[in-house]
This record gives sequence, structure tokens and C-alpha cells, in this order.
Amino acid sequence: MEKPAVRAVLEALQPLLGDRLVATQAVREHHGRDTSYHAPALPDAVAFPRTEAEVQEIVRACAAHDVPIVPFGAGSSVEGHTIPTRGGLSVSTREMSAIVEVRPEDQLAVVQPGVTRKQLNTELRATGMMFSVDPGADASLGGIASTRGSGTMSYRYGTMRDNVLGLRAVTADGEVVKTGSRARKSATGYDLTHLFVGAEGTLGVITELTVRLHPVAEAITSASCTFGSVEDAVNSVIELVQYGIPAARVEFLDEVAIAAVNAYSKLDLPVAPTLLFEFHGTEDWAAEQARIAEAICADHGGAGFAWSADADERGRLWAARHDLYFATKAIEPGKELYTGDICVPISRLAESIMAARADIDRSYLTGQVVGHVGDGNYHASYLIRPGNQEDLAEANRLADLMVGRALEMGGTASGEHGLGLGKLKFMRREHGDAAVLAMQAIKRALDPKGLMNPGKLGMAG
Amino acid sequence: MEKPAVRAVLEALQPLLGDRLVATQAVREHHGRDTSYHAPALPDAVAFPRTEAEVQEIVRACAAHDVPIVPFGAGSSVEGHTIPTRGGLSVSTREMSAIVEVRPEDQLAVVQPGVTRKQLNTELRATGMMFSVDPGADASLGGIASTRGSGTMSYRYGTMRDNVLGLRAVTADGEVVKTGSRARKSATGYDLTHLFVGAEGTLGVITELTVRLHPVAEAITSASCTFGSVEDAVNSVIELVQYGIPAARVEFLDEVAIAAVNAYSKLDLPVAPTLLFEFHGTEDWAAEQARIAEAICADHGGAGFAWSADADERGRLWAARHDLYFATKAIEPGKELYTGDICVPISRLAESIMAARADIDRSYLTGQVVGHVGDGNYHASYLIRPGNQEDLAEANRLADLMVGRALEMGGTASGEHGLGLGKLKFMRREHGDAAVLAMQAIKRALDPKGLMNPGKLGMAG
Repeated sequence: MEKPAVRAVLEALQPLLGDRLVATQAVREHHGRDTSYHAPALPDAVAFPRTEAEVQEIVRACAAHDVPIVPFGAGSSVEGHTIPTRGGLSVSTREMSAIVEVRPEDQLAVVQPGVTRKQLNTELRATGMMFSVDPGADASLGGIASTRGSGTMSYRYGTMRDNVLGLRAVTADGEVVKTGSRARKSATGYDLTHLFVGAEGTLGVITELTVRLHPVAEAITSASCTFGSVEDAVNSVIELVQYGIPAARVEFLDEVAIAAVNAYSKLDLPVAPTLLFEFHGTEDWAAEQARIAEAICADHGGAGFAWSADADERGRLWAARHDLYFATKAIEPGKELYTGDICVPISRLAESIMAARADIDRSYLTGQVVGHVGDGNYHASYLIRPGNQEDLAEANRLADLMVGRALEMGGTASGEHGLGLGKLKFMRREHGDAAVLAMQAIKRALDPKGLMNPGKLGMAG
Repeated sequence: MEKPAVRAVLEALQPLLGDRLVATQAVREHHGRDTSYHAPALPDAVAFPRTEAEVQEIVRACAAHDVPIVPFGAGSSVEGHTIPTRGGLSVSTREMSAIVEVRPEDQLAVVQPGVTRKQLNTELRATGMMFSVDPGADASLGGIASTRGSGTMSYRYGTMRDNVLGLRAVTADGEVVKTGSRARKSATGYDLTHLFVGAEGTLGVITELTVRLHPVAEAITSASCTFGSVEDAVNSVIELVQYGIPAARVEFLDEVAIAAVNAYSKLDLPVAPTLLFEFHGTEDWAAEQARIAEAICADHGGAGFAWSADADERGRLWAARHDLYFATKAIEPGKELYTGDICVPISRLAESIMAARADIDRSYLTGQVVGHVGDGNYHASYLIRPGNQEDLAEANRLADLMVGRALEMGGTASGEHGLGLGKLKFMRREHGDAAVLAMQAIKRALDPKGLMNPGKLGMAG
């Protein structure tokens, strides 16, 4: 049974969108879930606009009938961001996947929001430039922006926050807000760009992004090193950071993760707490960074520091890291992965990771800890039986313990996954009442009816 | 004659602040001007709080009587930010100059807003860390944050936007909003930190900042190189940027600026368009960067590329650059410097600078062009007779031409000085109606009575 308001919206938009306005059960179900454990909730229909003007018409029609609008990119959120808990219209950016302009000379690209990170990097191949933000999934840039995502290279190249120069968004009144410029910096006006980055779709639908590109390094060196303890591994990272070595990647994997990677990717890495490094630079400079890292790791008992500038060897190492999601699921086939995500001041990182590891060891769930440790950011993941409430409750308990400690350490409840549905409960604890009230005031100012991705950020109680 | 509302505020605050609440003519005049050409306007009184709690009381008293509140740091704005055009209370952060905490292990410092950049760097001397944001003046960190300032090292280390991890601010309702965390990144909630950074004091009074620190480089190499034309110099910079060399400083000085520096600082640099570089790294890496830059400059006809790792020589070069303000004023003693500031996409930089230079050459005013050109940011400065309306009009005309071209090129009306009073007129042209309306909505949401630095950002028509 269609609700009358939804029917009115569909009738209004049908002439504009034709078969790009879909209310079949299958399509609604596809847009009612993400890759997380969160319970699905179906949109009443899904729109597939191709242009900003169509997004404006969609928003206006929804606003006229008080129907919620839920932006949907690649659907790769792990925190329930795109789940339409209050129904309404999912607005998919799947058909908005054009790369509008690439300007290597200005180190920027202009893209529609549905462009994925891999798509953009494929397009950039001939330019000598790259887009550096690489969350695990092949997420859409609109989605990465909305969740303020990052990935393995943010220590060197910044998170999505640092890599969005400007954007265009359709706000709740159907108007197009243009933010930022093509200049690398600006001191004019409130920073609306960074208000939309991380807003989780609650302030408008992003219709275009201008993102920074970085030159592909002349030489790339990879390295791995194993340690006797988590503490030794993390202390090496802390020293590397303090030394100012601009490593492109510094990834930590605990023993469980290494064992999973070995089994899944046919590697034979020593099963111990491990750091994976990548260094970018000229040939000399990439090699020097590796030598310095080697010396620092050795000071902390790191063993078997192996580095290579060979592209094939590097490819195998990082492919294994990127396949970690599947490798971990293969530990206990049929189970799902529940992924926690926090970020702490780096001086507290070893203590934080060790506590997360100890929690897992005391639990009946299997789990691992991996992280973008140069940033102080890591994930603890737990294998749970699909639909099993006991496992879910235990995973929630472990993840909440980890977040609670992170907040006590002056860290944050999410380094890169966002709050979505699962972590809204930490808003007040992390930000305090006054900041939450300010966020709510901003939400009301830009979306008085609360139609933009309702139930997420900005309406948090 | 005191206004009744002001009298009520002074009476309310007198018991709290005692002699830190001042309404003498001299003190009011000191807080009624900045270092720019803008006409002074006096506050009714000036408060010198020492604590956040005192700032709260001040804001509450002003709010109760609808008296404007104008935050005042070092008074080094060049765009009139701190001029109380509608009177009210100037809130000086002079007595809020404590360095609360330095945590080298987390690469951060927590400071009160009145701490200046030099003060912080002096405090950091023994830690091996530095605060990198270095606008020309010894500005307060609250002021640098409020104007989203940068300086000579932002190409490598980022602007103030990139270096504020979090802050505390007293908003118009007298509450304290806490933003950000001590983690390097976060994906939780609207980015209030970056809403306050660049808000020019119109959303609240910043009472504390958590800023990023960077390791002092092991080796520092400086270099200078002269060119036959502006175009050759800037094209060298473009190539350097595209090569991905992370120069710490890339400064351009035109012939007029070089002549001024020679005369003032007793140097004998060739009088030609000049680039000054600084490279940070290990000894090998700093030297390699200099060699690469030398090769690139040579490709563009750069002559006399001279580099040195000698601290004294480096000190002389950069001291001369930092004294440029005084050197330029010394060209025509008794005159004032009117400084324009824009930022453009780097591919348009040569064209933009050449047009600005040509405008000056056609004008009767003496002027120069210098810039933080790695960012695409530069300043054209004009010498004008104090109080002379004809000179001021001509300087305005030249600066406006430069801004107009920057906006057409996809750039911005200010790279680092902010809009203040002089550039508010460009708000709509740069951001468009919808973005300006969104900014006004945010301003109303957080400061419904419009008491926070009225007449500046957020209330722009």
C-alpha cells in the first residue's frame, strides 16, 4: 500500500524520470540495506537522477509532500547511513557517474557524486596523478565525502576532508549551494564545504565534487616488519611519526589478521603483530624512508624488516591487505563481519589496541585488530552469526567498550566510518550538549522540515 | 555619552572584571583600528577576560542588553575584522595567553586564543616540534583561526584550517561549544571546528584551540633563483608542484619587492622576478629537493640558483622576506601599504600575476607583487598617502580588478586575509546567492540577535 504522500511524489516525478523511478520490491530491498549488521528498512521508492536539475525536482517534490530523501551512493556504508529508517525516497547517484573534468595542471578533478574511487583512478592513469582516498570498498565519492572517509593513505595525503576543494549540493529548499573554489585555499566565508563533508546526507544531496589529485610518486617502496608485541609495533609507529617520515601507508595487522591473510592470499608472513609500510618519493628518498623505518623498527625489536621496490611484490602485499575483509570472513565461513572504528591520540594507541585485543581474547567471538595506525585509527572486527542476537549483542558490547575508552583518551567514536545508525548514541558523550545543540540548530536552519536523511546526524537526541 | 545599554553591561561586568574593563579614549582607540586602511570605529569599552568563564559572563551580559561583541586578538588584521563598526564591547584576548598543554608525542598543543605564533614557537623550542602557520604579523592564534590565515609554509604544512584539531568557543547564548578532539581525524558529527575557523568572530568567541604541531626538520635548505620574466618564474613553480616536491616554502617576489628588500635589508639580490625556496627533510632529501628545483628552474631560464644549508645565510634571506612590509614602506617613506590578497588555480597564476603587475605599471601608485605561490596565493600591495581618498580609491580599483579576475579564473577573493570589511562586497559573486543564504541561515541559527561581530561575515547582504 503506497502512502498518499509518496504516491503524490511518484506521480509528480514520473514524467521527469520515467523508468528511473522504481518502486519494485527488489530495488527497494537493494536500497534498504548496506554492508553492515543494521536491520534493513525499505524506501518507498528509488529515484535514479542523471542531472543536478533532476535532483532539484526530486527534492522539491519530496519537500512539497513531506517525504524523506535518503541519498544513496555505492551502498558500501558499514554504519547504516543509507538505510531509510523512516521510508521515503532513496536518491541513488548511480546514474550520476560522469567525470566532468580532469585538470592535472591544477591537481584537481570535478566529478559527479556517483563516481567511484577506482573509476576515477582508472580515468587518471594517463595523467600521472592519483586520487588518494581509498576506503576498503569501491565507494562513491559522494558517499566518501558524506561520511568523511579516508583509508590507508590519509596519514600522507589526508582524509576526504582534506581532499574536497568544493562541492555542489541540493539543499532541502531545492536550491543549489555551491561551496569552495578551484584555489587550494580560501579565507572567504563560512566553510560550507566542510559542513557538507561528513554531514551524512542530512544537509542536502551532493551533486558534484571538486577533489584534489596528487602526483603519482616516481618511486614506491613497500616494507613489512613483524614484532614481538602490539606495543613494540605501535611504539615504532609513534617514533616514525615523531621523526616526521611522511610514510604513504602505515598499516597494523594483529596475529589473527595475519593468519587470515596467509590462508586466504597464500602468503607465508610470520604470524605476529605486523606493520606494513609504503613509502613514496624519488627513488633515493623512498629508499631512505625505508631505511629510517627499518632502523626505528629494529630499535623496537622488529624482525625481518623486508622492503622492496618491486611492483609485483608490492602488489601482492597490498592486494592481501585489501582482501582482508574476505580473508577474515573465510576464518569462519558463513559468518558476518562486524567492524568497529575509532581514532585516538597516537600516544594512547598501543594501550588502546591492546585493550581492544584483550577484550576480544576474553570474548567467545573471534575477532581481529587492524589499523591505519599512522593516524591513530584502527578497526576491531568481530565475526558474528547472521541474525544471531547474542552474537550481535556481544559485538556491540566489545565495540562500545572500545569507543568508551577512545573517548576517555580524547579520541573519537569514529575515525572514518561515520556515526550512521549504530553510533549516534555517542554524539553527546563525544561532543557535549552545547555542540550537539549547535549541530541541531544548523540542521534546522538548512532543513527545517527534517527531510534530509532523517534519523541520522543533526537530529540526534 | 554612554548608551544606556552599554552602561548596564559595564555595571554588570564591573564587579567581575574590575580594571580589566576599560572605557578610556586611548584604549578604545587602540581597539578601534587594525593595521589596514579601514576607517576606525570605536568600541564603547574593552574587556580583558582571563578565563573562559569570564568570557561567558561577558557574552551573557552583552546578550541581555543587545550590545555587540567584537573579539580582538593581536589587532594585526589587514581587512578591518576587529573594527567595531556598530560599537559595543571589544573582547580582547590579550590576557588569555596561556599555553595550556604541549604534547609533542601527540603532535599537538592546547592554547588560549591570545597566544601568538612566536610565543608558541618559543615555548616549543626544546621539544623538536614547531607550529607552522606563520602570517606576516605575530598574530594571535585565535585571530589566525578566525581569519583562516596561513603564511609561507602552508604549501607543505597546511593553512590554519588544516592545523586546528579542535577548539572551544563561547557562542551567543553564553554556552561553551567544544569541537573536534585530540585524534588526527574524526567522522563524527558536523565539522564545527571548521565552521568556527574562518568565521571572523561572527559565531562566537574562541576561548581555546588545540593545534597541530610538526616535527622540526632534521635539515633545512634554502635557495633563491632569478628569472627573466614573471611567467618563467611561475611556470617553474607549477612544474615543481606537479613534480610533487613538498617544498616547505615557495615565495615569489617581483622586481619592485626585490629592490625594496635589497635597500632595506642590505642585500644584493639581482633585481628580477625571484623565487625563494626552503626545503625540509633529512640532509639527503633536503639536498635532493634543492637539486630537483634547480633543474626545473634552469629549464625555465632561471639563473643563479643559489642554495645553502647554512643557517645564518638562510636566516638572512628569510628575515629579509619577513621584513618586506617595512622594506616596502621604506620605498616611499610616510606612505601606508594597502595589501590585496587572492588565490587562483595554479595553472592561472602566471597570467593572474602578470595582469596584476600590468595594472600597477599603468597606475600612478607604486606597488609590488609577492606571493606564497606554491598555493596559487599572492599579494599585490600599493603605497598610498595616509588619508588620501584619491590614492585609496585607486588602490581599491587595482585590488578589485585583481579579485574580479581571480573569481573569473575559479579562484577566491582572499587566500588568507579574510573578507573583513573591505571584501564583503565579493561574497555573492564568489559564493552565489544560495550559499550566502545558507551562511546567513547558519549565522541566525547560532546568533539569532546578530551580536557577534556584527557587520562582518554571516550578515553580508
